[in-house]
Amino acid sequence: MVGMTAKLADAGLSGKRPFSSPMDSALAEARAAAARGEVPVGAVVVDSKGRVLAKAGNRTLELRDPTAHAEILALREAAAMRGSERLLDCDLYVTLEPCAMCAGAISFARIRRLYFGAADPKGGAVEHGPRFFGQSTCHHAPEVYGGIGETASSDLLKAFFAARR
Amino acid sequence: MVGMTAKLADAGLSGKRPFSSPMDSALAEARAAAARGEVPVGAVVVDSKGRVLAKAGNRTLELRDPTAHAEILALREAAAMRGSERLLDCDLYVTLEPCAMCAGAISFARIRRLYFGAADPKGGAVEHGPRFFGQSTCHHAPEVYGGIGETASSDLLKAFFAARR
Repeated sequence: MVGMTAKLADAGLSGKRPFSSPMDSALAEARAAAARGEVPVGAVVVDSKGRVLAKAGNRTLELRDPTAHAEILALREAAAMRGSERLLDCDLYVTLEPCAMCAGAISFARIRRLYFGAADPKGGAVEHGPRFFGQSTCHHAPEVYGGIGETASSDLLKAFFAARR
Repeated sequence: MVGMTAKLADAGLSGKRPFSSPMDSALAEARAAAARGEVPVGAVVVDSKGRVLAKAGNRTLELRDPTAHAEILALREAAAMRGSERLLDCDLYVTLEPCAMCAGAISFARIRRLYFGAADPKGGAVEHGPRFFGQSTCHHAPEVYGGIGETASSDLLKAFFAARR
């Protein structure tokens, strides 16, 4: 555990950080998720002025809820704060490429821009698999920016799964 | 509104009903959703002995939650009841073909069989759009039975949208 903790602590962003702040918060949520034994993914919703509306990490095991991905929890919290199921002009930062469930929720919430960290060839639904935002059945697609804080996000996941093998 | 209510009341299942009981409950949830002004979709989770673990209708507007589709609410409730994020050996009945978000949640919950009513060419993700359960990024796919109580489900949706035009 000591080794993993050290490795996780090292997985911070470095170098140029054009979108550092919300993605740093998302990474902090991902690290906190890892510390709880959850797959380390974190998400942050910000409004058009950059104010953080909600942030969350994975809690599927803790909450015993198959839908409790970081993105879903952050979107639900932000919608509750806004008092609306539509988060117009809001952006979502998440450390991992969203899955189909989360991509669907992002679309329903009318998220303006999606920034994600590591690509997820095994379970992602933005650049992989369903590529949901490009489907004719997707009625709102955010602008998508991938690879933001990619190394840090990816290192976190690798360290987490390596420690569990 | 009187006309719509009468039309909705007429939209019951008729004829042979091999899976009538849980889908009837799902239809009742859909009707209740319509009465609340929500898109009329209902869902029921049953265990392997046919016991109802959870049932729900759409509540996206009421809860101001973009994820509050009938399937998501029913899955979350059933998982809470079971004390596990995996609903092994459980089946989901839903009046409309699930969207990408709900198909993802169904997969994560390890639902055994999915019975759905009306097909949804505009937003469905099972037989349309992403056809999620056939994607290599989908790691658990339920057995799928479509068209169960299709006419009743479809009539409910048509009556609902006709009344709002």
